[in-house]
Amino acid sequence: MGKEIGITVKKSEDFSEWYTQLVIKAELADYAPVKGLIVLRPDGYSIWESLKSSLDSKLVETGHRNGFLPILIPESLLGKEKDHFTGFNPEVFWVTRSGDGEIGDKLALRPTSETLAYTMYAKWIRSWRDLPLKINFWNSALRAEIKATKPFLRTSEFLWQEGHTAHADKDEAEKEVTDILEIYKKTVEDELAIPVITGKKSEKEKFVGAVYTLTMESLMPDGKALQMGTTHFLGQNFSKPFEVKFADTNNVENFVWQTSWGVSWRLIGGMIMVHGDDKGLVLPPRVAPIQVVIIPIYHSDEEKNTTLEKSREIKKELDTRKLRVRLDDRDQLTPGFKFHDWEMKGVPIRIELGPKDLERDKVVFVRRHNQQKQEHPINGLVEKIVMELDNIHNDMFANAQKILDERTGNVETYDEFKSELENGMLIKTPICDNPACEEKIKEETGADIRVIQDGCEDESSKCVYCSNQSKIRPLFARGY
Amino acid sequence: MGKEIGITVKKSEDFSEWYTQLVIKAELADYAPVKGLIVLRPDGYSIWESLKSSLDSKLVETGHRNGFLPILIPESLLGKEKDHFTGFNPEVFWVTRSGDGEIGDKLALRPTSETLAYTMYAKWIRSWRDLPLKINFWNSALRAEIKATKPFLRTSEFLWQEGHTAHADKDEAEKEVTDILEIYKKTVEDELAIPVITGKKSEKEKFVGAVYTLTMESLMPDGKALQMGTTHFLGQNFSKPFEVKFADTNNVENFVWQTSWGVSWRLIGGMIMVHGDDKGLVLPPRVAPIQVVIIPIYHSDEEKNTTLEKSREIKKELDTRKLRVRLDDRDQLTPGFKFHDWEMKGVPIRIELGPKDLERDKVVFVRRHNQQKQEHPINGLVEKIVMELDNIHNDMFANAQKILDERTGNVETYDEFKSELENGMLIKTPICDNPACEEKIKEETGADIRVIQDGCEDESSKCVYCSNQSKIRPLFARGY
Repeated sequence: MGKEIGITVKKSEDFSEWYTQLVIKAELADYAPVKGLIVLRPDGYSIWESLKSSLDSKLVETGHRNGFLPILIPESLLGKEKDHFTGFNPEVFWVTRSGDGEIGDKLALRPTSETLAYTMYAKWIRSWRDLPLKINFWNSALRAEIKATKPFLRTSEFLWQEGHTAHADKDEAEKEVTDILEIYKKTVEDELAIPVITGKKSEKEKFVGAVYTLTMESLMPDGKALQMGTTHFLGQNFSKPFEVKFADTNNVENFVWQTSWGVSWRLIGGMIMVHGDDKGLVLPPRVAPIQVVIIPIYHSDEEKNTTLEKSREIKKELDTRKLRVRLDDRDQLTPGFKFHDWEMKGVPIRIELGPKDLERDKVVFVRRHNQQKQEHPINGLVEKIVMELDNIHNDMFANAQKILDERTGNVETYDEFKSELENGMLIKTPICDNPACEEKIKEETGADIRVIQDGCEDESSKCVYCSNQSKIRPLFARGY
Repeated sequence: MGKEIGITVKKSEDFSEWYTQLVIKAELADYAPVKGLIVLRPDGYSIWESLKSSLDSKLVETGHRNGFLPILIPESLLGKEKDHFTGFNPEVFWVTRSGDGEIGDKLALRPTSETLAYTMYAKWIRSWRDLPLKINFWNSALRAEIKATKPFLRTSEFLWQEGHTAHADKDEAEKEVTDILEIYKKTVEDELAIPVITGKKSEKEKFVGAVYTLTMESLMPDGKALQMGTTHFLGQNFSKPFEVKFADTNNVENFVWQTSWGVSWRLIGGMIMVHGDDKGLVLPPRVAPIQVVIIPIYHSDEEKNTTLEKSREIKKELDTRKLRVRLDDRDQLTPGFKFHDWEMKGVPIRIELGPKDLERDKVVFVRRHNQQKQEHPINGLVEKIVMELDNIHNDMFANAQKILDERTGNVETYDEFKSELENGMLIKTPICDNPACEEKIKEETGADIRVIQDGCEDESSKCVYCSNQSKIRPLFARGY
């Protein structure tokens, strides 16, 4: 593979350019003809499908069901919850024509579906028997991005799921937002090998229309935090304007308590940033479209026959173990080209199989994430691979956790705050309950409160900005 | 269940009203706030997911992969293939604004994605090595319906899949449209128990932009034909304007040969119409969200304990066989109410379990599709249910096939044609190759050529309309 088709910048030197080149050159996604929109190529979509399947089964297990909502929402409906409308209005795409005619009440492409879902819920919910109602929607949302767009991280249409639940009981709804956040955390840690920090968003950063928002955040190599998923306790903020009511067991009418929550393909962006290196993608084994690539190495026709035959045998065995295996038998390409190609695509394990290895009943076994190369007997190879896929996942997670731990620290002064921010640190620092302090810090440094962790109350320190008595010690960072 | 929550008309008396009531009252779907749009409730979506999973695995097995395309297509791109644009333009939803600003080149909500997909394919395909390229997209399409809309059958947004393939070779592309049609047919017959008739569309009815279109059609109880899925051989009609080219093994540039194909949630509409009855839905077992419902019958607390305990035991056994089972232990509802409720929802098998049955180690076993009721020993019940689910499927398919056969007939004269059409028949009749005859028949009777079956050449008869020598004997019907 010539330099021009490899990545031309280093991750450590031009992170943003490295990221974009990687997405395109590893063939995960490509730019669509409309600015801010991307197309997912099969490898990118396959990662999304793996994530989806893992999360979906957890949601089904916990009593959620899937549904479908249309993409068009009338303006009058979107405007029913005022804060919500004000928050989303600037980024809404509007349909104003169909065919050659004008449309009366113009139609929004859903930026999120609370207003539509709850209009339906008001029709469907009659009594306590209909509760809880827990429906999830796998769809896409559209928000016109004016800032620079970036595949997976900031696009005007993105794939996501949005869950919408209604409960008879406030506590049950609050438990839902906590439970879902745990499910999200488990999915991200178990599938993508990314450690996350969970907690509450500040008032300033919560979802428009929510009582409060819970979040999971992770650290990216450039020191910024990536919001990986959020769950919102909506209280009765929507059930009142949308009149989502139920008759309780005493036949008294009450408004329901609601939650909504979502994760998007942004998770894939996080995975690329956290694990990728200068040679390309490094895929966590459980979501890798191809987990093992076998490359036969030969010079003569006879060598080709024997190495290919053995390769097919190994592939067959791995197939029966339900692993995703590719035998790269493309002719006319050199082994070196193939090595680079699959390194770019991030395949976790590469098996090289040459005539000399075969004579000794061995193969060469290479791990993508740490470039470790070793010989391994063909005997027992399948067991080794099955085990190594888990080891690689654990190793990748431990590496990311180590970096997260090393790069999270406490600071007490604003000077320290600013310098540690430049060092790419996530910063725990005391702050008072005056919202102006958070705003000033954001204005002056670009960093804001990413997450207020459980147990981070701190009334014995001084606010990092105004030096009054602090209330909490939340986590600050610049964000994506 | 009172009359007001049952279906208030008979299938045989007001088919259209029966259909709409059924969709809403069985809680498959509901009307969205925008005219022509529907929401899928969990049971409706679950049927779609079953269909999707069955079709998807067949597509993956045959080397197709999934991808994602954004929903917005610039007007300039949609206009690149002229016939295609003219065909779709009247029903396109246009985005003209985002936030408070105007958009320059207005954006279409995809009515179908040929133009966008092939813009991408032109970038991705370089040489014969990149072919065939076979990508499928599970998404929704939007076509503003001006006629009366009907859930699943005619809506302005619908769930579907669209496959788009590119081949080096014409024959290979033509084989693809035939192979996919077979996959569609198998899916519909094996999952929905609906027999279909396959063949070609006439020139007049083919997809705008295609060289030819293959179709599968089925007979609805009102005598109309429902187009259940189509595959299109696009030839080089799109590869030329979109410049989708490849270098062959001699390094000579050629345009690719293309296909596209799709099925939508219309299949669910067909299933409802073909199998439903005056009591509600009748679901084919393989797509039923609940395949077996168990209803314990009790009057005292003691009876409640024993019947519930046994019910749970049976459910547990069925669960381990991966069946979808619901134990209806809702208190305060009578068994009669529950029977009607699950009949409305079309659950294939109902198990009733009362104290007297229990004493004799028996249950009552009821089949939804033919209302057959019998006793069955608890011993061996699970095996019986597993077997019956297949039997019910086969029985439902055979019933539908029998009706299709009885209601397909040959006619030779136009008078006969018109009267048999009123009798709800699918009509095979000879026609010449003058397109005016097909058009006149459509104008005068509302029926058109639904499908030109393989081997229906007929040059020894007289055209049913103009009495000149016929060319073919295709199948006519009115369509949805």
